[in-house]
Amino acid sequence: MAAYGGIDLGGTKIQTAVLDQDHSVLGSARRPTPTSGGPADVAREIEAAMRDAAKAAELKTGDLAGVGVGSPGVIEAGNVTSARNLPGWEGSFPLAKTLEKSFGCEVQVGNDVQVATDAEFKLGAGRLYQSLLGVFWGTGVGGGLILDGKPWTGRGGAGEIGHVVVELDGARCTCGRIGCMEAYAGRKAMEEHVSEQVEKGRKTDLFKLMKERDRTRLTSGIWARALEHGDKLATHTIERAVRALGAGIASVVNVLDVEGVIIGGGLGVRLGHPYAERIAEAMQPHLFNDAQPPHVHVAALGDLGGAIGASLLLRQES
Amino acid sequence: MAAYGGIDLGGTKIQTAVLDQDHSVLGSARRPTPTSGGPADVAREIEAAMRDAAKAAELKTGDLAGVGVGSPGVIEAGNVTSARNLPGWEGSFPLAKTLEKSFGCEVQVGNDVQVATDAEFKLGAGRLYQSLLGVFWGTGVGGGLILDGKPWTGRGGAGEIGHVVVELDGARCTCGRIGCMEAYAGRKAMEEHVSEQVEKGRKTDLFKLMKERDRTRLTSGIWARALEHGDKLATHTIERAVRALGAGIASVVNVLDVEGVIIGGGLGVRLGHPYAERIAEAMQPHLFNDAQPPHVHVAALGDLGGAIGASLLLRQES
Repeated sequence: MAAYGGIDLGGTKIQTAVLDQDHSVLGSARRPTPTSGGPADVAREIEAAMRDAAKAAELKTGDLAGVGVGSPGVIEAGNVTSARNLPGWEGSFPLAKTLEKSFGCEVQVGNDVQVATDAEFKLGAGRLYQSLLGVFWGTGVGGGLILDGKPWTGRGGAGEIGHVVVELDGARCTCGRIGCMEAYAGRKAMEEHVSEQVEKGRKTDLFKLMKERDRTRLTSGIWARALEHGDKLATHTIERAVRALGAGIASVVNVLDVEGVIIGGGLGVRLGHPYAERIAEAMQPHLFNDAQPPHVHVAALGDLGGAIGASLLLRQES
Repeated sequence: MAAYGGIDLGGTKIQTAVLDQDHSVLGSARRPTPTSGGPADVAREIEAAMRDAAKAAELKTGDLAGVGVGSPGVIEAGNVTSARNLPGWEGSFPLAKTLEKSFGCEVQVGNDVQVATDAEFKLGAGRLYQSLLGVFWGTGVGGGLILDGKPWTGRGGAGEIGHVVVELDGARCTCGRIGCMEAYAGRKAMEEHVSEQVEKGRKTDLFKLMKERDRTRLTSGIWARALEHGDKLATHTIERAVRALGAGIASVVNVLDVEGVIIGGGLGVRLGHPYAERIAEAMQPHLFNDAQPPHVHVAALGDLGGAIGASLLLRQES
């Protein structure tokens, strides 16, 4: 029986998985994404993480029928250009070719958010729908679209839901623009917001939790913990994010009238159903067709969705 | 040679046209939309306006191969329900059947904004593109989508670009919601804004021009005249509208990455190219992929676009 590899290349972690033909996970692994060096260093960690997953599945990478990679940046014929959140990756790097040499099998590279949306559409929470908006709430906020049963990528740059404007004279986004949804809801922007508030004298346990857990960033797990503790600044910051997500997602639904909205990403999956419901509630006052809101679900494939979606790149016929 | 009728049923006016097979206009007419009564009264004015156009084309409605209507409201099998901006039209009215009886030919009813977008796609400023956003800037702000060469209507309610949120705690929209693009850019909302400013003591010639031209509303022509005169409040209000349009349209482009944006509607067509350029400039700071902005054009079919688009409903194969 053929096995496939899937790699989700994120700004924080590299998640890999090996799947059989029926999309059952035979093994998986995770490594932190290098924070220094360049594309070749990142590629080496990708290779190691894929070998870990193959080993867990009692296979070698050469046994795989192929490996798919979901990557940030601009992707063209296996080359990845200007992948933000990855170290030293401003230029172009032949990722597919590099990994093929190392793995001894075919490698396909696709857009990280789009492959995760495809996975939810084909195997996850979006299986019942023919039109779908995937919202990946993590370091940034990415979006993927399925329209009429097919991925919609526009001229190659579609899905940037994080940069929908929700406040004309609002907060500065990590992208440099003003008032983007991500300026309120992206984990990176939220961490900056909390730091500013702390400088102004507000109290929070977020950074204490970060040190206790030996982290250098406010991870999704730390946010979840702080919310459970009733940390006021964390609660306020997440509510601010939910409000922005509600307005931004409702805006897109007003224009596209999709059947379903899938909330994924590190924060989306970690905070889960209660927060997906809060986002749906925050959408409601902005929905023009409020009698027929779209169905809102948490990504059913969880943290592995990106890697599973990447493995589907090898099986476009399925 | 077969001739077709097209009707654009708007909140302010009913525009009709008769076209030959090659989409050349043989005759056209315009009547104000009734402001009181109910659907039957509106239907009578539609019939009269269509007869005027047929007469101008030296034809009778019974000679037509068919008539298309672009209508607001929810459209299902020729019935129109809850058409806002039309008097007493909360319920359902069998518009196609009523007009067929009167005209003696087949009648098809479609969504007003979508047929105008289709017309620009097939015959107007969008002919070069396979993906297109139509923005109809008038009393409200409507939107139509062409994706992959086909209209995208979602579950039937897509295209509500006027209700994309551009300011979370912003102005109240005529729809009752907060911060919609239409709350800044719709002609109705702009008129309310100007009235409030006048009550606060600001000066403007807008209402003087309205009285001189014997109007009861600030029409697109009055806005254009006031802008030419350098009226400060008019200029400020239009700039505020352009800024909201820029942010809202850019948000949609960030998600869909369409090739072209067509600016139509009463104000869009009347203010024309210089203001389409200003909207493009206002989009630029919010475009995520700012190196590859979409092409922005004024609707090439002008005021007749809606009626021409409606006539295409009879010729879906063309």
